[in-house]
Amino acid sequence: MELLVIKDKRIDYDGSAIRSHWAYRNFGILGDSLVVFRGRCDVKVEEMVDIEDLRQRKEIKSDDMIHYIIEVFWHPDVLLASVLQKLFIARLCELFSERGVKVERRGDDIYVGDKKLSISIATVSPVSIKIHIGINVTSRGVPQDVKAIGLQELGIDPEEFMEESGRILVEEFLKVRKDSMKVRWVL
Amino acid sequence: MELLVIKDKRIDYDGSAIRSHWAYRNFGILGDSLVVFRGRCDVKVEEMVDIEDLRQRKEIKSDDMIHYIIEVFWHPDVLLASVLQKLFIARLCELFSERGVKVERRGDDIYVGDKKLSISIATVSPVSIKIHIGINVTSRGVPQDVKAIGLQELGIDPEEFMEESGRILVEEFLKVRKDSMKVRWVL
Amino acid sequence: MELLVIKDKRIDYDGSAIRSHWAYRNFGILGDSLVVFRGRCDVKVEEMVDIEDLRQRKEIKSDDMIHYIIEVFWHPDVLLASVLQKLFIARLCELFSERGVKVERRGDDIYVGDKKLSISIATVSPVSIKIHIGINVTSRGVPQDVKAIGLQELGIDPEEFMEESGRILVEEFLKVRKDSMKVRWVL
Amino acid sequence: MELLVIKDKRIDYDGSAIRSHWAYRNFGILGDSLVVFRGRCDVKVEEMVDIEDLRQRKEIKSDDMIHYIIEVFWHPDVLLASVLQKLFIARLCELFSERGVKVERRGDDIYVGDKKLSISIATVSPVSIKIHIGINVTSRGVPQDVKAIGLQELGIDPEEFMEESGRILVEEFLKVRKDSMKVRWVL
Amino acid sequence: MELLVIKDKRIDYDGSAIRSHWAYRNFGILGDSLVVFRGRCDVKVEEMVDIEDLRQRKEIKSDDMIHYIIEVFWHPDVLLASVLQKLFIARLCELFSERGVKVERRGDDIYVGDKKLSISIATVSPVSIKIHIGINVTSRGVPQDVKAIGLQELGIDPEEFMEESGRILVEEFLKVRKDSMKVRWVL
Amino acid sequence: MELLVIKDKRIDYDGSAIRSHWAYRNFGILGDSLVVFRGRCDVKVEEMVDIEDLRQRKEIKSDDMIHYIIEVFWHPDVLLASVLQKLFIARLCELFSERGVKVERRGDDIYVGDKKLSISIATVSPVSIKIHIGINVTSRGVPQDVKAIGLQELGIDPEEFMEESGRILVEEFLKVRKDSMKVRWVL
Repeated sequence: MELLVIKDKRIDYDGSAIRSHWAYRNFGILGDSLVVFRGRCDVKVEEMVDIEDLRQRKEIKSDDMIHYIIEVFWHPDVLLASVLQKLFIARLCELFSERGVKVERRGDDIYVGDKKLSISIATVSPVSIKIHIGINVTSRGVPQDVKAIGLQELGIDPEEFMEESGRILVEEFLKVRKDSMKVRWVL
Repeated sequence: MELLVIKDKRIDYDGSAIRSHWAYRNFGILGDSLVVFRGRCDVKVEEMVDIEDLRQRKEIKSDDMIHYIIEVFWHPDVLLASVLQKLFIARLCELFSERGVKVERRGDDIYVGDKKLSISIATVSPVSIKIHIGINVTSRGVPQDVKAIGLQELGIDPEEFMEESGRILVEEFLKVRKDSMKVRWVL
Repeated sequence: MELLVIKDKRIDYDGSAIRSHWAYRNFGILGDSLVVFRGRCDVKVEEMVDIEDLRQRKEIKSDDMIHYIIEVFWHPDVLLASVLQKLFIARLCELFSERGVKVERRGDDIYVGDKKLSISIATVSPVSIKIHIGINVTSRGVPQDVKAIGLQELGIDPEEFMEESGRILVEEFLKVRKDSMKVRWVL
Repeated sequence: MELLVIKDKRIDYDGSAIRSHWAYRNFGILGDSLVVFRGRCDVKVEEMVDIEDLRQRKEIKSDDMIHYIIEVFWHPDVLLASVLQKLFIARLCELFSERGVKVERRGDDIYVGDKKLSISIATVSPVSIKIHIGINVTSRGVPQDVKAIGLQELGIDPEEFMEESGRILVEEFLKVRKDSMKVRWVL
Repeated sequence: MELLVIKDKRIDYDGSAIRSHWAYRNFGILGDSLVVFRGRCDVKVEEMVDIEDLRQRKEIKSDDMIHYIIEVFWHPDVLLASVLQKLFIARLCELFSERGVKVERRGDDIYVGDKKLSISIATVSPVSIKIHIGINVTSRGVPQDVKAIGLQELGIDPEEFMEESGRILVEEFLKVRKDSMKVRWVL
Repeated sequence: MELLVIKDKRIDYDGSAIRSHWAYRNFGILGDSLVVFRGRCDVKVEEMVDIEDLRQRKEIKSDDMIHYIIEVFWHPDVLLASVLQKLFIARLCELFSERGVKVERRGDDIYVGDKKLSISIATVSPVSIKIHIGINVTSRGVPQDVKAIGLQELGIDPEEFMEESGRILVEEFLKVRKDSMKVRWVL
């Protein structure tokens, strides 16, 4: 899994990065990848993936977020996509914990007390597994009915966090992949 | 996913419970299941699944453990098995955290400081995904080269822990499964 | 597999219900489902799934039909879709037989003598198996080159048939699924 | 799907024919196949596939049966195996019906009134789908706690039935396979 | 795998033939197929499959080519698509060799010295594996930055080559498929 | 795909190396691998994979061979195994050709005139694809009914050939894998 952390420019997230081969089309990265970037978030209705959001006509917005786009070229299984997403979220929570920030994972959301720190979606394309995670840098621009919080309110430097979180998510995936190849099957 | 917590008797774990349909053969539970039980652990060489352990001729032993045997009837994909295992371990760590016990997840192991609290393996049978997790109740009977710790040293009541941990792991799986069915696929 | 029988309103079938997540988008039903409803049938060309029909520029029409929309969240295998469709059609034929109506199954069609009682299609979306079955309530509105018959000509009450047929198709699926989990694999 | 009907000799069924490549090893038939033969039935415990039978220590016996061994080289999915088995049983019931014999399908069993006419199992090997169906020629040799019936009691000539039933099961499979390749997938 | 060699008319290739069911929609061929035809090549941007070509805004053009469109109804695995494509290209190279024409395979391209003889792409649809191979009849119309060669420069009669190459590719596939069904799986 | 060429010792091939995780168990190589080694060949009946050989009670023997054991951790699909095997054989033939040795590929066999140079088998374990290729160093020890030839008769240095052939097979696989990840899927 190749890691690309983009710090020299901002990239806004409108939902289209969830499509297959986004990392290859835009950055020439072939194969499993994690691209970390920073920018606004405003998901267009036609790019929304969570049908529950669509049914409730939710807005998915934030003025400043760290975005993680993961693509894994494996058989496109929505269950695997969903489990992998939760594991990545759990890993991010562990990282906050290690930094002394008390967070709580609720499924694929990260909360600080009753304030929402993140958004996430996991799905499949016909050739890969795709996951998006977004972590608020500030709570500005988040829909008014959502109590939100951002990294800055938590005293975390976004640029440095992009580097470290990107690295540990890739490590987690490589560990998972490695373990899967060293076990014999059972009867 | 059906949950069975066995508290009225002890069942020793020799590794054979990792085989497919163990819950159905022994308890008549059909389909996805989590069986939680308590007993000694002494994995026979011929039942060892981790080839790394086999290569290093490791002993897998403990006098008293809580065991979790998970079976998911889904396409037998070792990557899914490995990811799901890590998520379950992460969820157990969150539970310890909620109880004020500081633990650390290292891949599929749970540590309290430098002491090992658990063992785990994840693999596939030709029809299902199988995971075993074992948590020491005490550190007695663990191989001498392993620094171990158990629930009792942590002040946790094993019986009550069996119930709660079983329940939250099933909840986690159901959430994961549910999420996987409410997302549209992407281009 | 959740069953929803809609009797308080009519829903016309234009083919779009064959798309994935239709039951979730419209009725909030998550996971495997069978939705039974009643309404006109007029499949738009762009929604036609059977390429043979497209090649022959067939019309798929009827003024009043009972519709069954099945979605199974399993690996999207067209062979499984096709086999499951035939089994559901066979089960419906058995139901007619139990009621003393002599019908004949020809692949995925139900005939009463030389008169066609039903239409059906089975396919996959990237995340699920989808099947549509339509049973004429009357033969009105059916393309002129098709000799058709409907439930009313057979003396069957459509509303009551919707309930019973829906129930037995779900039972059939659950039996099939259950059986698949209680057999060991072979060498 | 190649059809082989063996009428010049008897072959007893002890359960081992359910293993993969049985038709190739014994008759040189490569690929999808249906082999129809006649002989005693006495399934050895170590060949039993239905774990429910194993748990209840059932005997699977009959003095004279027509046996169908089906192998399909497709991705080894137990759900597909179970659905295909039920469809084949339903097709056999339709054949009895066409011959004026009133039978009833209960899952994968065929009954004449309260008397059992058949046995069946469906499972997977690591490379194929395998189904066994056995139809009593007489009710002799069937375990005493089972009320059984055979083709002879129904006035059906076994030899002729082997030919016709073999042919229609192959036709059914070919129709199912053909249909699966002429539908476009949906969004 | 059905073979259709179209010699009585020219068909231009604009890339749309790479879509699923093209052979069925246009020629009524159901199931695995190889269609060989001759015509211009000018792939529209919206039909381009190789994202590398898209990124480099390459033109894919030739005035006169033999085209091979292969569709295999198997689980849509891009790795299988890519391997099968290379094998077909290698088989074509062997054919040239047998005819005394010295060619070199570079991945999925065929070269004569430093001149390019062919283009090719392999991918999946949600229901099948699709491969296109194009062999220049002449080097006319090929983009100016590509040094190209055609069958005519090599003294090969295109019409006769269409027949023979079509036949040997089908033979290769049938051999591959047959071999896959005569091996037992291993532990 | 990791390459290991073993030149400092001989390893005899009795067929057991075709089992899953052989490279990991014996050399600690985790994941996709190609191990090239040299030694006698005498496949034990219980390790034979080709059922045709078993049926004909063929002997598979040679006094001195170069062996290639390939393992790919991908979904265990016998068709993919068979195609990949043929591609590797074709690639080896191309290598002989580049060295001026005229060989002919017949399916998965390499011939020099009417003399057989190689043996090969491809199959699946429940977690991987496994391929064995054996190339005679000399024709000694080959079953008497087989006209054989070896590298030494062809003037090829076995040690040097092990290195180069190992390297080009790994390159071929990496190219195939890379190409599979740079194509968009089609409708």
